[in-house]
Amino acid sequence: MSILAVGSMALDSVETPFGKAERVLGGSATYFGTSASFFTEVKLVAVVGDDFPSEHLEFLESRSIDTRGVTREKGKTFFWRGKYDYNLNEAQTLDTQLNVFASFSPQIPPEYAEPSILFLANIDPELQMNVLKQVKRPGLIALDTMNYWINGSLEPLKQAISQIDLLIINEGEARQLSNQINLVQAARTILGMGIKTLIIKRGEYGVIMFDRTSVFAAPAYPLGSVMDPTGAGDTFAGGFLGYLDNTGNLDEASLRRAVIFGSVMASYNVEDFSLDRLRRLSHKEIQDRFHKFKALTHFEGLE
Amino acid sequence: MSILAVGSMALDSVETPFGKAERVLGGSATYFGTSASFFTEVKLVAVVGDDFPSEHLEFLESRSIDTRGVTREKGKTFFWRGKYDYNLNEAQTLDTQLNVFASFSPQIPPEYAEPSILFLANIDPELQMNVLKQVKRPGLIALDTMNYWINGSLEPLKQAISQIDLLIINEGEARQLSNQINLVQAARTILGMGIKTLIIKRGEYGVIMFDRTSVFAAPAYPLGSVMDPTGAGDTFAGGFLGYLDNTGNLDEASLRRAVIFGSVMASYNVEDFSLDRLRRLSHKEIQDRFHKFKALTHFEGLE
Repeated sequence: MSILAVGSMALDSVETPFGKAERVLGGSATYFGTSASFFTEVKLVAVVGDDFPSEHLEFLESRSIDTRGVTREKGKTFFWRGKYDYNLNEAQTLDTQLNVFASFSPQIPPEYAEPSILFLANIDPELQMNVLKQVKRPGLIALDTMNYWINGSLEPLKQAISQIDLLIINEGEARQLSNQINLVQAARTILGMGIKTLIIKRGEYGVIMFDRTSVFAAPAYPLGSVMDPTGAGDTFAGGFLGYLDNTGNLDEASLRRAVIFGSVMASYNVEDFSLDRLRRLSHKEIQDRFHKFKALTHFEGLE
Repeated sequence: MSILAVGSMALDSVETPFGKAERVLGGSATYFGTSASFFTEVKLVAVVGDDFPSEHLEFLESRSIDTRGVTREKGKTFFWRGKYDYNLNEAQTLDTQLNVFASFSPQIPPEYAEPSILFLANIDPELQMNVLKQVKRPGLIALDTMNYWINGSLEPLKQAISQIDLLIINEGEARQLSNQINLVQAARTILGMGIKTLIIKRGEYGVIMFDRTSVFAAPAYPLGSVMDPTGAGDTFAGGFLGYLDNTGNLDEASLRRAVIFGSVMASYNVEDFSLDRLRRLSHKEIQDRFHKFKALTHFEGLE
């Protein structure tokens, strides 16, 4: 079993009320892959520039992540500068330099072509569809996107969505994509676009998962200190799909547990800047927090 | 067992994107009492004006609510006019006429003086403390408040809070009262004011309950249609305390189930204007939705 993830690798400069970090490791593929690597084998496809510190690739490899699909192009690495105020829910983007990411055209190495799960992180939907053509259909295809593509590339995005199984987006994006304010109606509309499962991320309020017959809501883990929310969504996706790939099971009970593992990973990730918390995270800590999620949400039924 | 609730009775004019209602039954005591009446005996203390339709009191009595503590004063009933836009989370107040409520000074009838639970709905903290002097200490005292009192009567409010067991407020109020942005830190600060349990209402995101040793998070029920959110908080409190009074138990498992019953009642209430949904609500529907909450939140633990 292995997950193939296609997305970005970036250098981020982030400022929050609790500190700042300059040109640290970031990007959707990075957060996703590191998180998933606690559960299963991960193969990444991404592009970096010639300024990308090799220690970052070495870090990913130290987590047994396959980086043969990460190409190094002439030019600079995708750079993002953002700032969060005390309300840590939304980043203010101060600068985005796509650099080598602007001409990213994912090439799937032959040795990557039969993943059990495929994660298409937030990139141009045309590129996402192009990846689909390069792989043998995996057991599960998940896709993330953002308002930029919903605004500017709605038709290709809808076409991409019709070819996948599971969509992971945030609340605002779900409303925008469906043109529905009410989240249940939004979910129905989006499920009608041809997917089996929809996961809506709600930041500090957790996650809600819809499929045709059931709904599952999980809170975020209540943290006494959040340092930097960057990458929480991709870290969630990594824990979620990583756990699913590890179990090899896509039944409802597994999907629900996967949501909790995703939430566990995201909750750790925001405790420090960049991937610093994941760097020192242990399997025991993951198990511990899974149990705390159970304690956080459990109530006895009626007889 | 019985609950004594002290609060407002009002006539509300409400407009939402889905309709409007003119001078309909409202008020914290009304929503609370009606909701709690599905679970236990309720005694209300409130004031109405001479314009208050007697059919409203008859409705409350039809629910076996004791209204002997509701006094009718010369003048008009508390009137509130509000509007919600598509984002149903926050009301825009267009008009507030306190009328007879301005000089409300709750007098507890002698036959009310030994409740098992006391609910002090959102009124002046000085009046809340005055009520405490008039009753034999109940097994549980719960209090609701609002930003108006946090801004203008912080010291009396803190004094009132130090005399109660359980505080029910919304997220913004918790942050304001504690002067903390982070909700976990806010909860710690507020628990430090002398209460055992803090319930923080988060609108469409549900409820989070803190005590000294545990945290419980419950989502709101995902509704495909919300007509009017007015009264959701008091309806929650009514289901929550009503269930607790019914069980006669204040252990952790009961408190958690009570949160779910409160959430069930609030979820029904917002399905129609005023108390119209509660008027036609059945016990079977309450049980059904409780089970659906279980299905909504349940996941299997690890071995």
